[in-house]
Amino acid sequence: MIVAMQEKATEEQIDAVIDVMVEAGVNVHRTTGASQSILAGVGPTATLDLSKFEMLPGVLYVHRISSPYKLAGRGFRPEGTVVEFRNGVTVGGEKVAAMAGPCSVENREQIFETAKRVKEAGGSFLRGGAYKPRSSPYAFQGMGIPGLELMRDAAEAHGLLVVSEVMEISQIEPMLPYVDLFQVGARNMQNFNLLRELGQVRKPVLLKRGIAATVEELLLSSEYILSGGNYDVILCERGIRTYETATRNTMDISAIPVVKKLSHLPIVGDPSHGTGRRDMVAPLALAAIAAGADGIIVEVHPNADKAASDAAQTMYPDQFDKLMGQLRLIATAVGRTI
Amino acid sequence: MIVAMQEKATEEQIDAVIDVMVEAGVNVHRTTGASQSILAGVGPTATLDLSKFEMLPGVLYVHRISSPYKLAGRGFRPEGTVVEFRNGVTVGGEKVAAMAGPCSVENREQIFETAKRVKEAGGSFLRGGAYKPRSSPYAFQGMGIPGLELMRDAAEAHGLLVVSEVMEISQIEPMLPYVDLFQVGARNMQNFNLLRELGQVRKPVLLKRGIAATVEELLLSSEYILSGGNYDVILCERGIRTYETATRNTMDISAIPVVKKLSHLPIVGDPSHGTGRRDMVAPLALAAIAAGADGIIVEVHPNADKAASDAAQTMYPDQFDKLMGQLRLIATAVGRTI
Amino acid sequence: MIVAMQEKATEEQIDAVIDVMVEAGVNVHRTTGASQSILAGVGPTATLDLSKFEMLPGVLYVHRISSPYKLAGRGFRPEGTVVEFRNGVTVGGEKVAAMAGPCSVENREQIFETAKRVKEAGGSFLRGGAYKPRSSPYAFQGMGIPGLELMRDAAEAHGLLVVSEVMEISQIEPMLPYVDLFQVGARNMQNFNLLRELGQVRKPVLLKRGIAATVEELLLSSEYILSGGNYDVILCERGIRTYETATRNTMDISAIPVVKKLSHLPIVGDPSHGTGRRDMVAPLALAAIAAGADGIIVEVHPNADKAASDAAQTMYPDQFDKLMGQLRLIATAVGRTI
Amino acid sequence: MIVAMQEKATEEQIDAVIDVMVEAGVNVHRTTGASQSILAGVGPTATLDLSKFEMLPGVLYVHRISSPYKLAGRGFRPEGTVVEFRNGVTVGGEKVAAMAGPCSVENREQIFETAKRVKEAGGSFLRGGAYKPRSSPYAFQGMGIPGLELMRDAAEAHGLLVVSEVMEISQIEPMLPYVDLFQVGARNMQNFNLLRELGQVRKPVLLKRGIAATVEELLLSSEYILSGGNYDVILCERGIRTYETATRNTMDISAIPVVKKLSHLPIVGDPSHGTGRRDMVAPLALAAIAAGADGIIVEVHPNADKAASDAAQTMYPDQFDKLMGQLRLIATAVGRTI
Repeated sequence: MIVAMQEKATEEQIDAVIDVMVEAGVNVHRTTGASQSILAGVGPTATLDLSKFEMLPGVLYVHRISSPYKLAGRGFRPEGTVVEFRNGVTVGGEKVAAMAGPCSVENREQIFETAKRVKEAGGSFLRGGAYKPRSSPYAFQGMGIPGLELMRDAAEAHGLLVVSEVMEISQIEPMLPYVDLFQVGARNMQNFNLLRELGQVRKPVLLKRGIAATVEELLLSSEYILSGGNYDVILCERGIRTYETATRNTMDISAIPVVKKLSHLPIVGDPSHGTGRRDMVAPLALAAIAAGADGIIVEVHPNADKAASDAAQTMYPDQFDKLMGQLRLIATAVGRTI
Repeated sequence: MIVAMQEKATEEQIDAVIDVMVEAGVNVHRTTGASQSILAGVGPTATLDLSKFEMLPGVLYVHRISSPYKLAGRGFRPEGTVVEFRNGVTVGGEKVAAMAGPCSVENREQIFETAKRVKEAGGSFLRGGAYKPRSSPYAFQGMGIPGLELMRDAAEAHGLLVVSEVMEISQIEPMLPYVDLFQVGARNMQNFNLLRELGQVRKPVLLKRGIAATVEELLLSSEYILSGGNYDVILCERGIRTYETATRNTMDISAIPVVKKLSHLPIVGDPSHGTGRRDMVAPLALAAIAAGADGIIVEVHPNADKAASDAAQTMYPDQFDKLMGQLRLIATAVGRTI
Repeated sequence: MIVAMQEKATEEQIDAVIDVMVEAGVNVHRTTGASQSILAGVGPTATLDLSKFEMLPGVLYVHRISSPYKLAGRGFRPEGTVVEFRNGVTVGGEKVAAMAGPCSVENREQIFETAKRVKEAGGSFLRGGAYKPRSSPYAFQGMGIPGLELMRDAAEAHGLLVVSEVMEISQIEPMLPYVDLFQVGARNMQNFNLLRELGQVRKPVLLKRGIAATVEELLLSSEYILSGGNYDVILCERGIRTYETATRNTMDISAIPVVKKLSHLPIVGDPSHGTGRRDMVAPLALAAIAAGADGIIVEVHPNADKAASDAAQTMYPDQFDKLMGQLRLIATAVGRTI
Repeated sequence: MIVAMQEKATEEQIDAVIDVMVEAGVNVHRTTGASQSILAGVGPTATLDLSKFEMLPGVLYVHRISSPYKLAGRGFRPEGTVVEFRNGVTVGGEKVAAMAGPCSVENREQIFETAKRVKEAGGSFLRGGAYKPRSSPYAFQGMGIPGLELMRDAAEAHGLLVVSEVMEISQIEPMLPYVDLFQVGARNMQNFNLLRELGQVRKPVLLKRGIAATVEELLLSSEYILSGGNYDVILCERGIRTYETATRNTMDISAIPVVKKLSHLPIVGDPSHGTGRRDMVAPLALAAIAAGADGIIVEVHPNADKAASDAAQTMYPDQFDKLMGQLRLIATAVGRTI
């Protein structure tokens, strides 16, 4: 950690700060400049609440130098993490993964038809929501377990894996038989108790970035899962909130190379939520893979315009077919396959 | 609802849109301009997923006109809501309320000393966290129920009410004997299951705005509580995330008059989280009351620099005393008391 | 235009609003719902200050339906604009254009060496700043005209076109002999007098998006140039300001398909400013082309680490070579060439 | 400056970084921790382009410690700046200043009537635009010099000072006889050539914060004026762009105490542009003064609904009267007068 003192800080103030640092188990090295002193602290600063120091008299600012996450950091696994599923499908390796399906599971016909089309197009995961967190209490709230059963059946029938969102701790246990990949939604990215529980589970987790979360906060959240011993975490960029209203969110494509640099975890892009518009999904899916993403997750529905939720951002199966064709070319261009 | 058609939309496209609207139970009035047609729909549009219409061929955009919340809207209670507590304290009436206390309850001495000073300065609520959602898994996570017991005792001893954060459904029941006001933190503003449960409780709820939430989304979230029959909801502005880094968040003071215009619910300001800096708390607390807030909630700790969490934004009791003195003058200036 | 009245609006209020609309030359169609009236106005609303209506008693909100730009709209030239330069190079057609060079022109050797490498790698434009708008008054401010002379010579020697930033009206005339493409920087995107003057010039203009500008505002700004009769405008996405600090700006890749949908103007991506980090330039350049951009503009310097400005985001020529190789593959994948 | 090395940085990399620092005239102090080395640099770092260091091999990040502005810093004039005008009016002292008038000067009657009402209510500056930068090329663009003549006459007749916006260098000279305070608009906050010229003028300047500018950038921009020898600079908070759409901008009230802490320059609040809504102007004006602002600048028009520009955010004179009455009470509450 670094404590930069104000130009007019007195010797007493500097000594007082050094005392507090030493008390916290930190070794202090002082640099005295013509106008300013700098205190460099070495020791257990990763777990220290640095805000304590910010308000001490004479302090200009305090900066943590070591990254606050450990297990999620690139240094922990420089070669990168490859998450492997029971049927041999991987995320984070050479192959780019495609996850697709409806926002909500609605009925047997819908989910079976979707699964068929996803498989035919080259997808490897069937996505679909059974519990739907909706901002209005008056909107459709999901089918629950019966929806998961339908998804599982449809996925089995077509050789797909199942990814579905878990919204609270009590849902983990009942969902276990049905899902291959637990999805944590953007709104739960900082539901730390849920993350901690998922750290105890032995199934991979897809962790979506919150709409106001920094990449650093996303990695800190993944740390909750990793620190429980569950190393199979896949991150997901799905758009952040900005002032621009032409798209529902602003998909932060640069977060993909940033994550690749800072962390060993795989990352996929979600252009459906990232843009909120069906006609923007394909260009942003291509962009995500071109920028180095390990896969995409998109919303597909056989009757997209009549989807019970997220209709505007859901693709028709024919559009998904076309997208997969283009993705194959882009994957090749960046030295990967699909 | 309004559907604006593109300039080049064909008659077939317009007719198709009208059909979908009618199918949804909406009466349609068409306005044909020189270059563009507009479809005004009247009917049960509040519960309709309008995104369905956005992607229909020929549609330029779709706009909901009726506000998506009902019970939280000003029209539901034009005179405004006054939340009344068991000891006669009110929030939303003529008196401005002050809620103060440490970020986390740490020990008996700390919380009793704080309660004493809060009461002496004119506060009416003791705030304090027993469950702490921290972004790093390696930071202090709170005392739990024993912390609540200490708070309750300290509050009773000094004639204060207790406000503390509930983080998940399973905590509601055990917290009931200890708190007078359930606080829902910014990260849980869209934890709809938690909100729905709190709608069943017969204790007031303090609902904090999420750091990336619009005022409309805050009101929609309050609707989850109100629709369960719990009308004692107090909103809280605590800063939003912007590009500015001089303060931890940007406290959106204008949200206060906006809420007053759109809703009947009381709103308080939280300048501790709003700014993240002890020396900014007082000016922003004064600003909140000047702008029409019904109260403030601030962090106070007898030994602020050594607080186990949020040290930088926590005031010393002497600073709180001074703030209350200034607040009294501001309250008078806007026709209120403290 | 649409005027939605409040639920409790009186007949007098509605009539008053209709009067103001009619006075402004607008034909009004009224839709009366169970709880709310909607007034649809048809007429010269594109040039009307709609804010006048927002504050009339009983009005809930006002919405413009026709887009406020005309010449920049897709409808004006559905086939898309291809900007053609004197040597036959085009932007907006099948070929993807690469513009590269240093942030600032520093000396003859630097700019000639850069031009050589840009040409060899397949670039068609030499970029470079002669006037540098710097946020600190104490930083390097550019070489001025002598810098432009050097650029021109270097470009001629290697068969490249010159693009350079014009910062104020008085610079247009002196720059004319040296540049093929006037660049308007992000800070000047709303310098309307400068834009209007560039509308009188008969040379193409590269208009960068402001760091807080919406796509709509970018198109409105282009309208200033177009309305002067200069139709050779190329837009540029170069990152917007968000709360994320891992990159200098957040490059809004989705703005590329959004512009393609709303406008006929070509758009290029600037990943150097978009990310501010040399190691992020390549992934974001690939993403931009994958998403449909018509070209890229990047900073390249033979001795990047010692560049007089923007060193951190400037590539070495070898990095640019490699990027151009990858771009060729991506371009092919999306049906284009380089 | 601080250079934090990566954990795996080699000795050669560290030495190379030290060499570059020394070459730049910086004295280097090295702190070697268990896992990481930190280089503290002391010397002429304020004018150094630190981005050069960020990309050196082995560097984790670079941080400037000394603030990049000097003359605008609090330390330069700890007692604070009081700008004094020819008639004895001051901004930055004990008295809170009120500046009011129409967005645009439209005609003699309008501006005289406004001046009369502003004076009667207790205002000391007449504001009004003669040159209007409008985002649409089809909107009203201002009266120019004849508008300034009318303003001057109206101000003289009622004992007010004149503040009006200067949009480009060529307008400074012709405006000099008419204005007492040059206003630099938000869009020109980083028009550094204009700022530099205003540094040569011997009239005060009101510098508005850009809608995407940080407080640090605002202070850096003021430095351009100060470094020319013009110390009479008044800053203005007028709202920043965020994701919230309930108000046109988000007025960053916390910027007021932040500026007070970092700088000696006075700051006023502009709630008209800050909110964009007439009914939000009063609460935010009160909030600004409560938070420590030295004045307000608001839009007032005798026939606000028919104002040629910014109608929605313009107050009626009666509303301004009422606001001034409330402001008087707030000013007293914070120990000031009006």
